[in-house]
Amino acid sequence: MTVAGETSRVARALGVARGRPLVSADLASVTWLTGLVTDIEAGPSPFSASSLVVLHPDGSLLAIVSEDDADGLREGVEAVTFPGFAVADVDRENAAVARVLAVLEGARSIVGDIASLPGQLVWELVRSDVELVDSRSELRQARAVKDADELEAIRTAVRVADVGQAVARSGLRAGVSELELWSATRLAMEQTAGGRIPVAADFITGERTADVGGPPGDRVVSEGDLLLVDLVPRVAGYWADSCSTVSCGEPSETARRAHKIASEALERALGLVRPGVDTAKIDEAAREVVTTGYPHHTGHGLGTSFHEEPRVVPGRGRILEPGMVLALEPGVYQDGVGVRVEQVVVVTEGGYELLSEHDLDL
Amino acid sequence: MTVAGETSRVARALGVARGRPLVSADLASVTWLTGLVTDIEAGPSPFSASSLVVLHPDGSLLAIVSEDDADGLREGVEAVTFPGFAVADVDRENAAVARVLAVLEGARSIVGDIASLPGQLVWELVRSDVELVDSRSELRQARAVKDADELEAIRTAVRVADVGQAVARSGLRAGVSELELWSATRLAMEQTAGGRIPVAADFITGERTADVGGPPGDRVVSEGDLLLVDLVPRVAGYWADSCSTVSCGEPSETARRAHKIASEALERALGLVRPGVDTAKIDEAAREVVTTGYPHHTGHGLGTSFHEEPRVVPGRGRILEPGMVLALEPGVYQDGVGVRVEQVVVVTEGGYELLSEHDLDL
Repeated sequence: MTVAGETSRVARALGVARGRPLVSADLASVTWLTGLVTDIEAGPSPFSASSLVVLHPDGSLLAIVSEDDADGLREGVEAVTFPGFAVADVDRENAAVARVLAVLEGARSIVGDIASLPGQLVWELVRSDVELVDSRSELRQARAVKDADELEAIRTAVRVADVGQAVARSGLRAGVSELELWSATRLAMEQTAGGRIPVAADFITGERTADVGGPPGDRVVSEGDLLLVDLVPRVAGYWADSCSTVSCGEPSETARRAHKIASEALERALGLVRPGVDTAKIDEAAREVVTTGYPHHTGHGLGTSFHEEPRVVPGRGRILEPGMVLALEPGVYQDGVGVRVEQVVVVTEGGYELLSEHDLDL
Repeated sequence: MTVAGETSRVARALGVARGRPLVSADLASVTWLTGLVTDIEAGPSPFSASSLVVLHPDGSLLAIVSEDDADGLREGVEAVTFPGFAVADVDRENAAVARVLAVLEGARSIVGDIASLPGQLVWELVRSDVELVDSRSELRQARAVKDADELEAIRTAVRVADVGQAVARSGLRAGVSELELWSATRLAMEQTAGGRIPVAADFITGERTADVGGPPGDRVVSEGDLLLVDLVPRVAGYWADSCSTVSCGEPSETARRAHKIASEALERALGLVRPGVDTAKIDEAAREVVTTGYPHHTGHGLGTSFHEEPRVVPGRGRILEPGMVLALEPGVYQDGVGVRVEQVVVVTEGGYELLSEHDLDL
């Protein structure tokens, strides 16, 4: 929402483009640059086509979108529309490609998410001898540092995840099914958000927690079961992430031990977060605590996608900068029990600020 | 599930391909030919890339999919996998494209959904002088006639929609919010399906019904309000569709009149469904009854997408054939009130069989 924020996002993208038009149909990049939020819950719409963004070297931003989506763009972004919902038959893919080609008229070289571009567009560009420079990796790095308005959006999404965590925790009791508890959790998140929102989630109980993840099913909770609840809602285009593991009644010794290890790993990882630190070191610190049964990353960035740079994984470091957002989520999965705890932080000049406010107790 | 069914689906696709390899990354076509069902509710996964299908002229089918998705393919479909969920950084887009290029080695011409193909794949193909023949439209026509196993899948999905309709109807009362009633409706559908399922839906009450469609919000139902509930769940890769309009307590005269018109339009449209009939005639019949306030199609096919051929729209006819599935959904939106009724049928040799079993009363 701040002008400074917008400038900084566009400036980073211009740095990737180096004087050429930048083009992307990667939804995360399109949302990042234009503010576009599309319905994703039912997959690709038969009444739409891929949305695209074009950033010209002069800093002007164009969104090539369905006319049904043009209203939600950020201020200053020009909408170039193709037809939306209609009674008549419309070739929206062709229309979208024609719009992009018109916008790119005269360009001899473009950069961007080449892999994401519609086949027909690439076909036309290659036939016209336009040079295509893939810059996916640099764009992903550019997205890792958040502007002020993005941080606000992520805070809002994390609040929604917090609400979901609280409802899942308070509703856990013997006799409830995973799907019933999931439904209550989702409803609370959607009421907080004011409407339907996409939510990725692991929602597993009992022996299923040892599987690391999975969707809710018809399993019914028994006394002593664990619930592993990882909630990833998207609110206004930005994703949150959160995980806790909750015991129905008294936890077993195995569960307590696993929870203690996972919590200590999270604390150790968090303790290292500050500008200049290599994310590989953070991963290493967590793995020093969780020595076995840890088949996933220690953390990742989030924003317009729910798993992005900087990833916190073994052996491949990114240097943390202020404004990066990190979800850290060590877990322990062994002896038939899985426990994971996760918090989201933003890297500040002096260290980090905790965004998550949900309960992490067992 | 029947061998006959599978043969017929592949035979139609081979007819489109005319001796060349057929390639598609359109999810509806990939699911149709391979049985692939992917998570779609949270948008594109950071741990995957576009799934593709290749149909060789000899009838052999290959699915280029994430290793995490390879288990769900139909019998006889060969999985060619790229890496799935992993701790390490993996360029899945490149890996998928490399797999497809290997599978297509030596082909001088390919047909298929060119618009759907990943940009990088098209880039490589065009640079290697491979001819690309777009056959989207023919493939969509080929998908319109359903095989026996597809009809079974659609029946199952329609049963789930029926359950949702019943719960929305029985739960409608003054004081409930759209989101609360939607949540109960969705839970019942997911319990019937045995887990989370994608659901597209219009779920609007009161004056919002005049808007034709929209998602549930925080509006609270009052006595005399209408609920317009259009439920579109996907179960095991196949979509259902269903709509009814229900009154909370006694309906107004305006609502009764609109419901009478919409119901008569549905009856008139259904009365024409049999092999050899032009879908434009069906649309015309509905529009003779609904003379104003009808801004959408009269119907459409459904299967691995929720709106496909044969579309039932003005002036552009398809000739009905046995095995085609139609959702017919006339509506009336005027005087601040919207009413829509919808049923799904399959075209039989002698006419049609009704698949929907939900209540259509006001």
